[in-house]
Amino acid sequence: GSTQCSLDTIVDKKIKDVLNSLEYNPSATAQKLVCTSVTNSGKLSSCPAGMSVTGCACGYACGSWDVQQEKTCHCQCSVVDWTTARCCRLA
Amino acid sequence: GSTQCSLDTIVDKKIKDVLNSLEYNPSATAQKLVCTSVTNSGKLSSCPAGMSVTGCACGYACGSWDVQQEKTCHCQCSVVDWTTARCCRLA
Amino acid sequence: GSTQCSLDTIVDKKIKDVLNSLEYNPSATAQKLVCTSVTNSGKLSSCPAGMSVTGCACGYACGSWDVQQEKTCHCQCSVVDWTTARCCRLA
Repeated sequence: GSTQCSLDTIVDKKIKDVLNSLEYNPSATAQKLVCTSVTNSGKLSSCPAGMSVTGCACGYACGSWDVQQEKTCHCQCSVVDWTTARCCRLA
Repeated sequence: GSTQCSLDTIVDKKIKDVLNSLEYNPSATAQKLVCTSVTNSGKLSSCPAGMSVTGCACGYACGSWDVQQEKTCHCQCSVVDWTTARCCRLA
Repeated sequence: GSTQCSLDTIVDKKIKDVLNSLEYNPSATAQKLVCTSVTNSGKLSSCPAGMSVTGCACGYACGSWDVQQEKTCHCQCSVVDWTTARCCRLA
């Protein structure tokens, strides 16, 4: 009947208003992986706050590195002129 | 009273219908990190569209690389016969 | 009128109850990238279950590696005393 119809309309609008106020947006919750490189001279290079080290590169062809305190690339070869931290985060 | 009860039932169903139509599913929003390797001969190797470079590997033991245009691994040593891009995305 | 007002109140409460029961929480769905290193002696090192390899490091300055079965770093140089897998996951 007409009571049902107007109830439907009111409830529909209500639900959408509440969800909008919660900023519910299915596509907005899908995140992306964003990466960048940070290069420094010497044997150390750090990712900015909020980013994670996913790999490191070193000058003088060196492939021996470790990650210190979860944010700093440390190239281990005796002669290394630059260090790059590859840094990623979700956005 | 009975009006309240039927209202409850109608509103309950309505809310679930609207949420289903929005494809709201809490567990479906949890994403996973998926990675793959792309290897090419020469000094360059690129990640496919939608993936990010998290690290690179190079032939001839070379550990010196950089990422060009956010998607291509470039091995810098003078002699490099292959380049691998390590590529990740959320799925 | 007053019927409309009480309907509003009932529907508002209903919607919030249903969303709460679904544990809908926009900020809780935001995930973070968490990474760690796994180092082993020899030429192989694997990420724990649920983590993905984003890069590898090798002893003896070696920068030539590949990822086997999507979870194991394999350093390719003839002499390598240690291998590190850089492992990441969403949390």
